[in-house]
Amino acid sequence: MSEFSLIYRHFGSATPPHANTILGIGDDCAISQLPKGNELVSCLDTLVAGRHFPHMTSPHAIGYKSVAVNLSDLAAMGATPYAILMGISLPDHLANDAFCHDFAQGIKAACQPFGVELIGGDTTGSDILALTVTALGFIPQGQAIRRQGAKSGDLICVSGKIGLASFALSDILKGNDTPLRSALDYPTPQVLLGQALRGYASAMIDISDGLGQDLGHILSASGVGARLDLDQIPTDALLHELPNQSKWQHILNGGDDYQLCFTLSPDRFMAFQRDFPDLAIYPIGKIIDAQGLTLMHHDEPVEIPIKGWQHF
Amino acid sequence: MSEFSLIYRHFGSATPPHANTILGIGDDCAISQLPKGNELVSCLDTLVAGRHFPHMTSPHAIGYKSVAVNLSDLAAMGATPYAILMGISLPDHLANDAFCHDFAQGIKAACQPFGVELIGGDTTGSDILALTVTALGFIPQGQAIRRQGAKSGDLICVSGKIGLASFALSDILKGNDTPLRSALDYPTPQVLLGQALRGYASAMIDISDGLGQDLGHILSASGVGARLDLDQIPTDALLHELPNQSKWQHILNGGDDYQLCFTLSPDRFMAFQRDFPDLAIYPIGKIIDAQGLTLMHHDEPVEIPIKGWQHF
Repeated sequence: MSEFSLIYRHFGSATPPHANTILGIGDDCAISQLPKGNELVSCLDTLVAGRHFPHMTSPHAIGYKSVAVNLSDLAAMGATPYAILMGISLPDHLANDAFCHDFAQGIKAACQPFGVELIGGDTTGSDILALTVTALGFIPQGQAIRRQGAKSGDLICVSGKIGLASFALSDILKGNDTPLRSALDYPTPQVLLGQALRGYASAMIDISDGLGQDLGHILSASGVGARLDLDQIPTDALLHELPNQSKWQHILNGGDDYQLCFTLSPDRFMAFQRDFPDLAIYPIGKIIDAQGLTLMHHDEPVEIPIKGWQHF
Repeated sequence: MSEFSLIYRHFGSATPPHANTILGIGDDCAISQLPKGNELVSCLDTLVAGRHFPHMTSPHAIGYKSVAVNLSDLAAMGATPYAILMGISLPDHLANDAFCHDFAQGIKAACQPFGVELIGGDTTGSDILALTVTALGFIPQGQAIRRQGAKSGDLICVSGKIGLASFALSDILKGNDTPLRSALDYPTPQVLLGQALRGYASAMIDISDGLGQDLGHILSASGVGARLDLDQIPTDALLHELPNQSKWQHILNGGDDYQLCFTLSPDRFMAFQRDFPDLAIYPIGKIIDAQGLTLMHHDEPVEIPIKGWQHF
């Protein structure tokens, strides 16, 4: 099957046109205009079958997730998503209408809530299914929230429950079905919260590799340390049924939750709760001067090695 | 080896910083500003080992070519290259300093002549080496050269010799060395010519899939036909030693030359030659009203099926 017919049949109209697109799919490049007073925000993430999602993941979920993890990166800067470009490496046995239809519907499901348009890409054969997405977004000049900027005394917050995707993956790898599958397959990029945090958060990252490792990036970039209260980290009731050490492994060293982790001064925290009463945020600890990450349980420090996900 | 240490050691400083970059590698996203009065031009291309380059290609050439083919897409719009994001899927046996050093040097060799900066990306494990690059560029408002726009009476031109990469690949696939290896491994993106053609060319594309198929895209998008004079198409002396049919296969159905193919009125052709005496362009035929592609040899029509490269 030719790559051109595949592309146009399934992806050409997968997403709605965006007002900032001058030229979309179908030429050598796409052409876009930026809203006045905005900067361009861009990122790229690759998902490989069997490494970033289990082989048995549905085509719809694969399409959805390959977009969602990139929109999550935009959210982590406080940016407004605009468009994606997608590289699809497709094994012969998947180069058919059934797979491509469901996959394109998954892309659409991730794009549509945020008005994101698919403006370009490339489809090629490969022995392994792999998706590489570039996401483009806009942010008003100077308002991006970086990893650096956390200050001693800031509160550390997350946007929602942590460890669910890791719990689901461990079920699936054991060959079981799992009640938390949607946390793994259909993470919700925290786009609206990310934008709302402009002017409030001092530093931000999304949790893709594990809360421990990703918070660690904020700490290194900002030159500070942190004390986390493990008992305050929101998670699912199913994880509370596990022994503490297993639970904390999922929470600190699991990945793929795509919640936001961010810091803000106690004043800004109060102001945010007042200004955005409908957006829940969860304080889980404090930024401190002392380097490193201290983990507290029932007011006592506990030792848990922080690994994060290694893709090798 | 951790992806973070690999990325920072080899790619963190592979390219020079660009004045339009506000934040480069090392956060969730890159942040860029556009030059005033410019639009954003973006594209994405994937290269898979054994499909888009022979397995024995040097790491340096792989790094170079993965960037060059994307800069060629920018050139085909007349855009000024700005930056790249790169997704690297790396098999375990290549996740080492030796490969990554040479590969990063190849990226640098493709970026440096045009001041292109590597502003982001992702490195992940995979059983197959694959590279997905997004290239970003700028173009003054409304000046992009699209595939549509060719008009009856326009001349069809190319930017240089055609069929060399295909000739080289056929040598390599036979297990031979080839004097034209650099045409396959180190194509030169025609960036300066592409920019110079703003305001002159009526339609443009780069030749990645074969002159026949790529010119075909201009014809379909523009709703016109073409007559090509095979004897006028510039190629290498080595191809002239082949029987005509083999030579024409390389020229029309080979790919990977990354020369530009473009159309312009005879007036604009004269003006371009006057205004840019140092930039060689080669007329090879004419746009005509009649649909389809007519191929002429010694003033007689000849039949050559147009295939282009199919990646399935």
